[in-house]
Amino acid sequence: MSSTPEQAGRTATAEVAAEHPGVVELFALLAYGEVAAFYRLTDEARMAPNLAGRINMASMAAAEINHYEILRDALEKRGVDVVPAMTKFASALENYHRLTTPSTWLEALVKTYIGDALAADFYLEIADALPDEAADVVRAVLSETGHSQFVVAEVKAAVTASDRQRHRLALWSRRLLGEAITQAQFVLADRDDLVDLVLSGGGGLTQLTDFFERLQTTHSTRIRELGLA
Amino acid sequence: MSSTPEQAGRTATAEVAAEHPGVVELFALLAYGEVAAFYRLTDEARMAPNLAGRINMASMAAAEINHYEILRDALEKRGVDVVPAMTKFASALENYHRLTTPSTWLEALVKTYIGDALAADFYLEIADALPDEAADVVRAVLSETGHSQFVVAEVKAAVTASDRQRHRLALWSRRLLGEAITQAQFVLADRDDLVDLVLSGGGGLTQLTDFFERLQTTHSTRIRELGLA
Repeated sequence: MSSTPEQAGRTATAEVAAEHPGVVELFALLAYGEVAAFYRLTDEARMAPNLAGRINMASMAAAEINHYEILRDALEKRGVDVVPAMTKFASALENYHRLTTPSTWLEALVKTYIGDALAADFYLEIADALPDEAADVVRAVLSETGHSQFVVAEVKAAVTASDRQRHRLALWSRRLLGEAITQAQFVLADRDDLVDLVLSGGGGLTQLTDFFERLQTTHSTRIRELGLA
Repeated sequence: MSSTPEQAGRTATAEVAAEHPGVVELFALLAYGEVAAFYRLTDEARMAPNLAGRINMASMAAAEINHYEILRDALEKRGVDVVPAMTKFASALENYHRLTTPSTWLEALVKTYIGDALAADFYLEIADALPDEAADVVRAVLSETGHSQFVVAEVKAAVTASDRQRHRLALWSRRLLGEAITQAQFVLADRDDLVDLVLSGGGGLTQLTDFFERLQTTHSTRIRELGLA
């Protein structure tokens, strides 16, 4: 079959995209994110009022490591030395966590839920923008999320019992989103390959501002799920 | 087929054994052990000199939670309220960890390796003494162990470079075994159902003293593997 010049151009772009240097940057960023989340969850579990809470946090944290291992394998397959590649993203992720250190168990629960949901949104959006093989990796990680359902009942009960708690936690969840977007923008400002990758895909991330707006919308859904609206 | 009175007696014993109250006690003990190990590994990972070390510890810790989940499912299947059942074993396991808090990263590595190996030995021995279905659960957990191989190269390099380190870590590993046996004996002294279970099996645990001696022997093998002998 012959192809038009435009089609030939597209195929060539898709082939470049499969080895796009932004793919490695993205996987390394996500990998660091999973490890950072692991250690934050285990830290924040110290605030749990009981063993059941600590076990739930441990299960969440273990799921982050399963995600990390998928990303690590994908990076190793690409011949990347994983740990140094990840280290470049340490400051943005550590800053996010440092700026959103919970001061109560309920704040820790809300952070867990919102963080898990934001990560899932981001993975879902970005998968559409990636070359096929890279998209498969991201979807494999995504299929592993959703371990934070245990949060809903506990937060709902607390905010139903107290308006003051509801207002506090609603503000807290807004702050979590704000810091996440701020740090995401710092990362993008610093990483041309990553920006090029997310903008060059035909799919979801063609307009970054649209993307951040969609995050805001799904965030509002989560706020309602937790009874914070 | 007719059976002799002895055979009939054996079958009856085996049927009692399948619902032996010691099985629930054993699973609850192991479940608490896995969760306690998770939180200790993540604590001790703070001593890691680098990100690679923290990631290895996180992977080990995540494996403990996978073990825990197998045991939790087995307990739930038996209609047991998991968290209260586990709590009974908190003091013995927390005492073990409190009395063996590492003061250096190398001590943490040795503890991880020896602890993982002791758990594997114990799971292997006890599986032979259990009714079939319970043995399957224990073997499923066991097949999940062996995540601590990363320790060997790092400890070997350190003790090859320093005789002082070798002597220190050899003493440390002896202390780990001693405390593990002490706490195991406290648990058994307190839990008649558990003792009855491990003694009533036809397999490995018919003589507790033999069992503790075998632990000592396999422990010596590990000491050599780490270059501490």
